[in-house]
Amino acid sequence: MNAEIIAVGTELLLGDILNTNAQYLSQQLAAYGVDVYGECVVGDHPSRLREAVKLALSRADWVFLTGGLGPTADDLTRETVAELWGRKLVFDETIWQKIADYFKTRKRTPVESNRRQAMVPEGAAVLKNRCGTAPGLHLEQDGHHIILLPGPPHEMRDMFEHEVVPLLEKATGCVLRSRVLRVFGMGESEAAECAGDLMDGQNPTLAPYAKDNEMIFRITAKAETAEQAEAMMNPIETELRNRIGDVVYATGETDLQTVVVEKLLQKGLSVATAESCTAGGLAEAITDVSGASDIFRTGIVAYHNETKEQLLGVPHELLETHGAVSPEVARAMAEGIARVAGADIGIGITGIAGPTGGSPEKPVGLVYIGVWYKNQVKAFEFRFAGTRAQNRKSAVRNALNLIRKTVDEQMFL
Amino acid sequence: MNAEIIAVGTELLLGDILNTNAQYLSQQLAAYGVDVYGECVVGDHPSRLREAVKLALSRADWVFLTGGLGPTADDLTRETVAELWGRKLVFDETIWQKIADYFKTRKRTPVESNRRQAMVPEGAAVLKNRCGTAPGLHLEQDGHHIILLPGPPHEMRDMFEHEVVPLLEKATGCVLRSRVLRVFGMGESEAAECAGDLMDGQNPTLAPYAKDNEMIFRITAKAETAEQAEAMMNPIETELRNRIGDVVYATGETDLQTVVVEKLLQKGLSVATAESCTAGGLAEAITDVSGASDIFRTGIVAYHNETKEQLLGVPHELLETHGAVSPEVARAMAEGIARVAGADIGIGITGIAGPTGGSPEKPVGLVYIGVWYKNQVKAFEFRFAGTRAQNRKSAVRNALNLIRKTVDEQMFL
Repeated sequence: MNAEIIAVGTELLLGDILNTNAQYLSQQLAAYGVDVYGECVVGDHPSRLREAVKLALSRADWVFLTGGLGPTADDLTRETVAELWGRKLVFDETIWQKIADYFKTRKRTPVESNRRQAMVPEGAAVLKNRCGTAPGLHLEQDGHHIILLPGPPHEMRDMFEHEVVPLLEKATGCVLRSRVLRVFGMGESEAAECAGDLMDGQNPTLAPYAKDNEMIFRITAKAETAEQAEAMMNPIETELRNRIGDVVYATGETDLQTVVVEKLLQKGLSVATAESCTAGGLAEAITDVSGASDIFRTGIVAYHNETKEQLLGVPHELLETHGAVSPEVARAMAEGIARVAGADIGIGITGIAGPTGGSPEKPVGLVYIGVWYKNQVKAFEFRFAGTRAQNRKSAVRNALNLIRKTVDEQMFL
Repeated sequence: MNAEIIAVGTELLLGDILNTNAQYLSQQLAAYGVDVYGECVVGDHPSRLREAVKLALSRADWVFLTGGLGPTADDLTRETVAELWGRKLVFDETIWQKIADYFKTRKRTPVESNRRQAMVPEGAAVLKNRCGTAPGLHLEQDGHHIILLPGPPHEMRDMFEHEVVPLLEKATGCVLRSRVLRVFGMGESEAAECAGDLMDGQNPTLAPYAKDNEMIFRITAKAETAEQAEAMMNPIETELRNRIGDVVYATGETDLQTVVVEKLLQKGLSVATAESCTAGGLAEAITDVSGASDIFRTGIVAYHNETKEQLLGVPHELLETHGAVSPEVARAMAEGIARVAGADIGIGITGIAGPTGGSPEKPVGLVYIGVWYKNQVKAFEFRFAGTRAQNRKSAVRNALNLIRKTVDEQMFL
């Protein structure tokens, strides 16, 4: 089975919008083992669109079109495809009712041109649009399939997931399921070393993706049924967790700050932050999660030594002897903010974000993170090698991870 | 003059990477008035690539190809195009020397396969690659042009800007120049009202772009020479500045926090921040600019009332009488942090980021920003209508803008 993808819209040819639909469809089709040999973009121009569809049908079993299903005169995909395969367009009362309802709930009235969206080529199956007015269509003729999808990416993706996936499952005879394990504190090369052999499998597959200082492992299985696919993933997930379980912080759709806030709420623990080089980035990340006000108390951005002394009570001698960027000062900052704020956990971050301010002994990227909890305090050293923004972000992410480990009682025993 | 764009690479058909090159080229060509009638993606497959180039040449004067110029066996663009137009590939000693130099400065050694990148179709002009090893190529035959560009977006863009633009200028007989005016505190509809008539022009054009809480106005002129283009832009820039000069904060490539930090450094003024709903976002934005340590003193994230009282000296009665989200508390926070930190300018931010915490009197999105300067203090009210993250970001951007206006002596006279 192979496919081609045609994106329709003059706005694409003008570069006004990026063709993310093609990438999404390519990824999805690749996952089902469907070969995509070509993709193209055509403007809102009937004869060029017609030629593009003809050419695609001459090479592929399935042709996916996105865009051009709207109510305006330049939305021509429906008409062009119907004409090419000699199908009449018939007004579909059910679709029209749905469009009318869609407008009603939004307190708007459909206009005459919306009726075009209720025209269906004879014999075509309608693909429901749960996010907009333009229904999709599935036409079949002489062993070839044409799928018409709307252009707006969120409508297209929702329709693909709910309406096209069942068609692909039927056509390929296989069902696809995947699981995501979220990992913090492991690089791609380390992942390859730990789990490289597990990544060689064809089905299920295991693939790592690095993303914003973190990594996700995606396990994907292809089988005849969803149950079989789920069952196939279990052994590989178990094996992966045996090897790297301590760095897996969550599964599925979430992120590190959400997990941290949820854990703090569950345990009823509060946190306060004293930041130098990250300058509020940690406080911002924690409070990015709605409801964080129940666990976040106070943050102090102590960019200067005087602030560290006056507001956090970091002893002057400590700053003199060890310098502001030192494990001693990170610990004093963590303890200081916990006491000032009356918080259960105190975090102190001090480091050199760069690009200036480094020295041979204390290079750019050197960061100490102090953690105070239950009258104990520890400092952790990090050496980042990124830009100023990357180093700051890395420090924030690592601080979040240290809070997570503290709450999980992995650090202070 | 019209063009087609072909992106080469199986990784595109698998959806592993997004085809940003096509969008970039589309935008650039549209600016020169070149019509792009079609775009396509083909894999690393010689016969399909050959067919795609033939088809594009049958419809367009200029064909732009990206990708497939690397040193490995599946990089076939150079060979395929040479064969299609019956050109021999000749080893180019100059290119080879450049590749060898490129490797030398990176302390690496070119391998035998890199020699393929020094093969040039007879009669082709070489387009210099200043960011990588693969040179681009320009071939001309029977009034048709083929341009080969590398796949990595930063290499492709740099080559386009420096090597292709002169070709386009020659072919279209026109030179394109543009200027950017950065605006804060004006929405798109307001821009349309103020400057809508200026946007109707065909040459020069004036176009507004909303981006991250800000707006830029881009003036673009097409002329026979750069001098003419620059001269054509002057009247429209002058007229625009006459109308909206007070909201223009910079021209060219920069951003609001950089402008703010530069202004503070110039005037030798320091700033300190007290943040509630933005929780460190303002401190982070200011210190995002390298060198900010000379002007940023202290930040306090006062998420709870006790923190506002204890660390900022906000009177308990004020919080009781007016509530934490009030102009009175914003002013007290601004004054408090300026005194605690010994800073010239103090900023206090208090508001309801949402999604919870709103009431009919104080809805989600209500934010007060207090500014203390020269023993005076003022508060400004904002009503944002975004998500939690958008409201926080809007508050930070507006606070930056208030600092800018303070330093420019527009606010405290």
